[in-house]
Amino acid sequence: MNNITAILRQLEEGRLSTEEAAEKIRAAASPALSHTDIDYDRLERTGCPEVIYGAGKTPVQIEEIARNLLDAGQNVLATRLNEDALLHLSGAFPEADMHPEARLMRIISSPPPQAAGFVGIVSAGTSDQAVAEEAALTAEFLGSRVRRYRDCGVAGLHRLVSHLDSIREATVLVAVAGMEGALPSVLAGLVKAPMIAVPTSVGYGANFRGVTTLLAMMNSCANGVSVVNIDNGFGAGFNAHLINSLASGSR
Amino acid sequence: MNNITAILRQLEEGRLSTEEAAEKIRAAASPALSHTDIDYDRLERTGCPEVIYGAGKTPVQIEEIARNLLDAGQNVLATRLNEDALLHLSGAFPEADMHPEARLMRIISSPPPQAAGFVGIVSAGTSDQAVAEEAALTAEFLGSRVRRYRDCGVAGLHRLVSHLDSIREATVLVAVAGMEGALPSVLAGLVKAPMIAVPTSVGYGANFRGVTTLLAMMNSCANGVSVVNIDNGFGAGFNAHLINSLASGSR
Amino acid sequence: MNNITAILRQLEEGRLSTEEAAEKIRAAASPALSHTDIDYDRLERTGCPEVIYGAGKTPVQIEEIARNLLDAGQNVLATRLNEDALLHLSGAFPEADMHPEARLMRIISSPPPQAAGFVGIVSAGTSDQAVAEEAALTAEFLGSRVRRYRDCGVAGLHRLVSHLDSIREATVLVAVAGMEGALPSVLAGLVKAPMIAVPTSVGYGANFRGVTTLLAMMNSCANGVSVVNIDNGFGAGFNAHLINSLASGSR
Amino acid sequence: MNNITAILRQLEEGRLSTEEAAEKIRAAASPALSHTDIDYDRLERTGCPEVIYGAGKTPVQIEEIARNLLDAGQNVLATRLNEDALLHLSGAFPEADMHPEARLMRIISSPPPQAAGFVGIVSAGTSDQAVAEEAALTAEFLGSRVRRYRDCGVAGLHRLVSHLDSIREATVLVAVAGMEGALPSVLAGLVKAPMIAVPTSVGYGANFRGVTTLLAMMNSCANGVSVVNIDNGFGAGFNAHLINSLASGSR
Amino acid sequence: MNNITAILRQLEEGRLSTEEAAEKIRAAASPALSHTDIDYDRLERTGCPEVIYGAGKTPVQIEEIARNLLDAGQNVLATRLNEDALLHLSGAFPEADMHPEARLMRIISSPPPQAAGFVGIVSAGTSDQAVAEEAALTAEFLGSRVRRYRDCGVAGLHRLVSHLDSIREATVLVAVAGMEGALPSVLAGLVKAPMIAVPTSVGYGANFRGVTTLLAMMNSCANGVSVVNIDNGFGAGFNAHLINSLASGSR
Amino acid sequence: MNNITAILRQLEEGRLSTEEAAEKIRAAASPALSHTDIDYDRLERTGCPEVIYGAGKTPVQIEEIARNLLDAGQNVLATRLNEDALLHLSGAFPEADMHPEARLMRIISSPPPQAAGFVGIVSAGTSDQAVAEEAALTAEFLGSRVRRYRDCGVAGLHRLVSHLDSIREATVLVAVAGMEGALPSVLAGLVKAPMIAVPTSVGYGANFRGVTTLLAMMNSCANGVSVVNIDNGFGAGFNAHLINSLASGSR
Amino acid sequence: MNNITAILRQLEEGRLSTEEAAEKIRAAASPALSHTDIDYDRLERTGCPEVIYGAGKTPVQIEEIARNLLDAGQNVLATRLNEDALLHLSGAFPEADMHPEARLMRIISSPPPQAAGFVGIVSAGTSDQAVAEEAALTAEFLGSRVRRYRDCGVAGLHRLVSHLDSIREATVLVAVAGMEGALPSVLAGLVKAPMIAVPTSVGYGANFRGVTTLLAMMNSCANGVSVVNIDNGFGAGFNAHLINSLASGSR
Amino acid sequence: MNNITAILRQLEEGRLSTEEAAEKIRAAASPALSHTDIDYDRLERTGCPEVIYGAGKTPVQIEEIARNLLDAGQNVLATRLNEDALLHLSGAFPEADMHPEARLMRIISSPPPQAAGFVGIVSAGTSDQAVAEEAALTAEFLGSRVRRYRDCGVAGLHRLVSHLDSIREATVLVAVAGMEGALPSVLAGLVKAPMIAVPTSVGYGANFRGVTTLLAMMNSCANGVSVVNIDNGFGAGFNAHLINSLASGSR
Repeated sequence: MNNITAILRQLEEGRLSTEEAAEKIRAAASPALSHTDIDYDRLERTGCPEVIYGAGKTPVQIEEIARNLLDAGQNVLATRLNEDALLHLSGAFPEADMHPEARLMRIISSPPPQAAGFVGIVSAGTSDQAVAEEAALTAEFLGSRVRRYRDCGVAGLHRLVSHLDSIREATVLVAVAGMEGALPSVLAGLVKAPMIAVPTSVGYGANFRGVTTLLAMMNSCANGVSVVNIDNGFGAGFNAHLINSLASGSR
Repeated sequence: MNNITAILRQLEEGRLSTEEAAEKIRAAASPALSHTDIDYDRLERTGCPEVIYGAGKTPVQIEEIARNLLDAGQNVLATRLNEDALLHLSGAFPEADMHPEARLMRIISSPPPQAAGFVGIVSAGTSDQAVAEEAALTAEFLGSRVRRYRDCGVAGLHRLVSHLDSIREATVLVAVAGMEGALPSVLAGLVKAPMIAVPTSVGYGANFRGVTTLLAMMNSCANGVSVVNIDNGFGAGFNAHLINSLASGSR
Repeated sequence: MNNITAILRQLEEGRLSTEEAAEKIRAAASPALSHTDIDYDRLERTGCPEVIYGAGKTPVQIEEIARNLLDAGQNVLATRLNEDALLHLSGAFPEADMHPEARLMRIISSPPPQAAGFVGIVSAGTSDQAVAEEAALTAEFLGSRVRRYRDCGVAGLHRLVSHLDSIREATVLVAVAGMEGALPSVLAGLVKAPMIAVPTSVGYGANFRGVTTLLAMMNSCANGVSVVNIDNGFGAGFNAHLINSLASGSR
Repeated sequence: MNNITAILRQLEEGRLSTEEAAEKIRAAASPALSHTDIDYDRLERTGCPEVIYGAGKTPVQIEEIARNLLDAGQNVLATRLNEDALLHLSGAFPEADMHPEARLMRIISSPPPQAAGFVGIVSAGTSDQAVAEEAALTAEFLGSRVRRYRDCGVAGLHRLVSHLDSIREATVLVAVAGMEGALPSVLAGLVKAPMIAVPTSVGYGANFRGVTTLLAMMNSCANGVSVVNIDNGFGAGFNAHLINSLASGSR
Repeated sequence: MNNITAILRQLEEGRLSTEEAAEKIRAAASPALSHTDIDYDRLERTGCPEVIYGAGKTPVQIEEIARNLLDAGQNVLATRLNEDALLHLSGAFPEADMHPEARLMRIISSPPPQAAGFVGIVSAGTSDQAVAEEAALTAEFLGSRVRRYRDCGVAGLHRLVSHLDSIREATVLVAVAGMEGALPSVLAGLVKAPMIAVPTSVGYGANFRGVTTLLAMMNSCANGVSVVNIDNGFGAGFNAHLINSLASGSR
Repeated sequence: MNNITAILRQLEEGRLSTEEAAEKIRAAASPALSHTDIDYDRLERTGCPEVIYGAGKTPVQIEEIARNLLDAGQNVLATRLNEDALLHLSGAFPEADMHPEARLMRIISSPPPQAAGFVGIVSAGTSDQAVAEEAALTAEFLGSRVRRYRDCGVAGLHRLVSHLDSIREATVLVAVAGMEGALPSVLAGLVKAPMIAVPTSVGYGANFRGVTTLLAMMNSCANGVSVVNIDNGFGAGFNAHLINSLASGSR
Repeated sequence: MNNITAILRQLEEGRLSTEEAAEKIRAAASPALSHTDIDYDRLERTGCPEVIYGAGKTPVQIEEIARNLLDAGQNVLATRLNEDALLHLSGAFPEADMHPEARLMRIISSPPPQAAGFVGIVSAGTSDQAVAEEAALTAEFLGSRVRRYRDCGVAGLHRLVSHLDSIREATVLVAVAGMEGALPSVLAGLVKAPMIAVPTSVGYGANFRGVTTLLAMMNSCANGVSVVNIDNGFGAGFNAHLINSLASGSR
Repeated sequence: MNNITAILRQLEEGRLSTEEAAEKIRAAASPALSHTDIDYDRLERTGCPEVIYGAGKTPVQIEEIARNLLDAGQNVLATRLNEDALLHLSGAFPEADMHPEARLMRIISSPPPQAAGFVGIVSAGTSDQAVAEEAALTAEFLGSRVRRYRDCGVAGLHRLVSHLDSIREATVLVAVAGMEGALPSVLAGLVKAPMIAVPTSVGYGANFRGVTTLLAMMNSCANGVSVVNIDNGFGAGFNAHLINSLASGSR
């Protein structure tokens, strides 16, 4: 709608009739407004206009998108990279921060502003690490500090309890677990912070690649828990940073 | 096969030829053996030859079966009684021990031998009480002492922990929970005893009347847990008594 | 552990030997600590020590719990009340704030501190109102202001868009929808705030009482969305208030 | 039944008795009628008597069927070709129009009559392209013009809105989306045309390879939407052409 | 955006500066445009701005909405009415056209324009009639003529075949069936027209209230079939009319 | 097609031209043939042209259909009758054979020919009796003798074994069981006859109203077992009679 | 129990006391009887004591079992052979009858007696051939003649109808289909014979590898259909032969 | 809490005030107690502090953990080893006891105390052997003697029955079966001992990789059965040993 003023001037200069000007304004307003309303807001919201979801893209496609983002002066986060992509990209971007265990690449040219609080990421077993790291690296990429609490499965409650003082200082928590997914219920009964629960596909038999875990988390008897999709570490990290930055007054 | 000796005597007395005797023994052995092998053993095993599963039976049918058992000198346990059945049976058997909250009736004319240890029955929420009581009353009926630990849901871990010393003295545990069913996992990480987990149909939405709970318990990350059907308090109490009496050397 | 000092004084006064004092402290510390660690924290966290989940409780039981809470000087929130309970409780508590459409009762004797921002609750259809109101009344009960945006289903996008300026001022959003559950995806693409999505059991046929809706929300292609159980308005309102009060610096 | 007249003439000419004629007519009528009724109509209906569904066929089998169709003067459409088949067929039919991204081959010797309107094919994400292209290439093969609208996922509503004027000119629409499958609901609220929704198997975790998407589309709150099987681009293109050609008066 | 011209005139009359005018236009354009773009189009599209989905509404609520529509000069279609609603509404609207078997009410003050072709509605069993009638009455309400073919289940193929000549004259078909849902597959192999398949919840056991039927229809081996939700007669009638009116050139 | 000869005679008598005769034959052949081919065959096949499936029909509708069948000289079998229908029909047809426990009515005016062998119907528990009786009464209605073996659940194997000699004389077996559905597997390992397995909806929790039972029977490790729908006693009785009458040479 | 006579003789000869004899008889009777009752009957029943289910066995294991059977003078049927097993076995048994398309091997040293009637095996699509052949080759192996009807999918009804006269001569039918599984319903409405339906895993998307097909067949609206597991051609052929041989009086 | 005495001494020596001492005790008590309460108990409970779950770990990681355990003087049990791990570990630990068929390694440096009774492990088919062996080797590793009963599927009941005398001597039973999972129901009706049922993923089609088996076992009509996850031989062996050692008075 930047050209409304231009149209008005043409009207004033007599180069357009009132009817013509009204018509031109209507035509211009429709798509332009939509773009204005929607698109720029989205860019502003996250500080990261586009995250590259690597699944189903070739290494070359990912490189291309990453280069475009870098050229536009933006930081790059690429997730769900397979081995080929990790190999290719570590060659293509020597400056990149590669995380094979989380299947993720970050290139941070201009560090984002840091939120005051921190995101606590509590995970149950060794096999849940990949997802927990995706969450942690995402939250850090967006500007949150992260503390990681590993091996806190509910069958060995003492490890969880021994970290409790530190965990309670977090602004927001991410709880990552597979199998019966009991961690969020237990943890939410012990802390103040809101919690994002991430079911992982770790398990076998009647676990159904994380579906049992997801359903169990959905049924948590504790308050303050909400859930994201199976293995969606990125989504949890994103949500956690959103809440952390709100709480830090940085938004 | 009690009459094999009789047949042999007839053979010795010359009233049967060898062929006739062999034939008679074959005829007798076939059905008789089957009955002997199987049926009596079943009676001996549990000390309670038949439990009346009340679901789908009329009050009068239940009364009839109960009278037959009493006439045979046996104790009576009737489960899954609806309101009509409870009302009718409390009229028909003034001596009965009625438990409307567990939908169950017991008539104990000759108390069973008591096992030495006890069964610990730990339940999560108020709504799980009916199932927990079905388990407790069943185990008691069969000859086990029971300690009940109520309101031990994992979201309020301190209540569970405050009972831990007592819980650890149990020979065998029954863990009753609905919703996300995390109790068995947490509890099994804290105790020595084998544990029967009972999912209840307490929950809503993605709980699917206990299916999520059952699946979560199946996926328990803790050792020593096995699971029975949704709301199957009777089965858990039965199993727990079986183990308790084994451990008590009473079998 | 309040009596540790007392024990120490007894030691100093010579009424206990060092060994006896150490023993007494060990005994006292174990359960007491657990209570201290866990329970008081839980009370502090929410400002509402206990919410009465009315499903499966009799009207008299609910009244009793409510009276206990009132006697303890606390505010009362009771959810999932059926018609009998609503009738009984409105008689028992003339001062109560009854919400039959949301199946909920509130008695607020001492208003909680108000958070600075507000929770935006956006709902899709008329039939989603009960759940949306449960969320709204819960968030208000806990101390958040709420703005309600009704009838914002994605099939009539203009209504959603016409509220967009107001919606964008919310600190945190709750999106309530049944059927295909598309509202959170669409809305999250238009706003900055974190969003709690609540699937409702509104629908028929292949909706499976909200399961399709829940799964669709879990798969949202938009960032910043996490999900609670079907029809769990209370949970969404609770989560939203938690985030709102964090963001308002009131915690 | 074309030879009934012939039989009658034989009767008139005395070469058949009445009984013989009746018998011959009965014999001829039964199978012949069935064939006439059913088979030829099917061929006429689509203008394409047989589409080769490549899944589970060897490259050589596909080539053979394609040659038979070409010999019969027909155009050839082969779908669901794997890499081996694509390679083999591009060697075997140098004149063919190969589409590896849609796993499809077309050989059009005599172009079909063109319908007047056009089919609009709107797709959500990059990963939905293969299915969208299968739909587009099928509709074109059968005689419909197609306009493609890519990257119109509901989380970036502005892109969809910016194409709206063009989309609204379509006679019939195909909406292709994975994940939460919200596109048809949103789009159907903005346009006049009937819409075929195609769920894709794009997603992870609780997406269940497109099942969540399919169910969500089934529950669309918008009118005018019907659904085909997961990844069934061919079916959608076929349906869309059927409606487009009806609307164009070409049938 | 009707007041853009007014703003321009104020500019010309010197009552607004160019900047003020540009500002006012921007403000007016945003919401107004959205409404214009979207809402009126929706009204125009169907000729019926709002259908009353009766499920979950009280008889009085339905009456109220119906009166508003009548006052606005529109025809009224209310579906999914329960017995109370049917009784109440037949009292409230003596002029209404009540269809208890399809649970539906129509009040047609100004008949819609009639499309040239007709919609053929083929149903399998007696129990599928309610859904078939909902489809038929909806299509008629919107302006399509309808022919009904009842009792055409695939286990009695001769009845279907005996109607085939008539069925083949339809512009578009609706196939309504429960149980194994084979009707659309069989019928689509015999006709030219596009077909909307409606699974019904008629069946028992492993039918799962229509889910098996829906899935079977989704997997139809015949071309030209798309599917709507279980028991969604309204949706099928709506879709069929949309296609019929397109084909009739009336749009 | 019985009137083809008549048409031919009219042709010979000069009352029809060859063209007219050909035309009349074509017209007559098409529907007539279809009816002949299909319908009469169906009637002949079962000896019972139509069984009244009572579910979803009013008592008066059922009475009406039954009267039509009686007027046509046929026997009547009506299944799935609710209490109202049973009451009404026992008043309307004093000569009827009412079976409330199987929810079924039979009126046999002319007894069908009896097959030589017999159908053995083996059922597991008391609660499976309704379904077993539906099977038994259906098979008898159609002309098979039936022997019933009740209370043969696999947990009390001795009862099953004690009937084995008699069971082995059956031409064909029907095995009716709920819960884990193990009966067909066990029984099929002990007998020669083909077996129809009927899962019942008897069970609770993870039984899912017979779905678990059905799936278990589908997976039977024994040969010679095929399965019908949950609670489909009628289907099993029908199938068993079909095989019994084939084996008896009565077809 | 063959040594009962021997024991009796020892008793007569005074080498055993009555008590010793009774004891020996009891000991011998228990296991021996069980073997007699059960095992030999199983062998007699099928004429084929053991079919080798090849899945999960190594080629060498299969060869070994086959040699044992041959040494015992029996015919050999091995199913579910993978490529390695097929290759290995065709080397090991030059006399064998290999069927790679049905993944099956037969070695028939002494042909079984032929039943009088024949089994009709009707299949829907090309991809269903492997399963149909497994059924056909199994029935032939056991002693039934087989007629195969291919490509009889319901979407091309004319092909099915054109074979109807021949199909109707079968004693028993096997219907093999994937996708929506409509073939058994349609076919059972046209024939007299009992029918075994075999769902195949042919399909995609919401077919769930044959589950939709199985469920649809379970819900068949036609009488006389029972169902075996997905892809279980062997089971269907076995069942069909059982019925065919019964009907042929050969048992 | 070992330093409580130290603190008390400092208090007595005047180096701490009462307040300081109380504070130090509180600080020390919290984490220390938790560790004491929970961790050591877990170690004591099983006699095996950690079992290495090999799935998802590299061979080198497994070797490392195993070495740590050996260094700590503990026995090593590693389960779910793939071929690479088995190869690597048999090189790394020449003293190890490798079980490729059960995918398991044991290194027993100090044999555990032997329980008096034995665990009976009954399995159905050859394909269930891997899981049965995992159970057997686990129970042996922990200190139970094991008797194995193979090939006891319910379709060949005589094999099961022939082992019955021996089976009845077991303290506790493990029943391992795939497909319809009927073994536990049949066996539990014949024995006294408690039973752990293990569903295996052996089966095809509607077996769903063991889910049908698991559900069937959950619905067992026999008493005394509880269930572990699909293929969870380790869990069953662990549970069985727990009960066996309880019964043997060795705990």
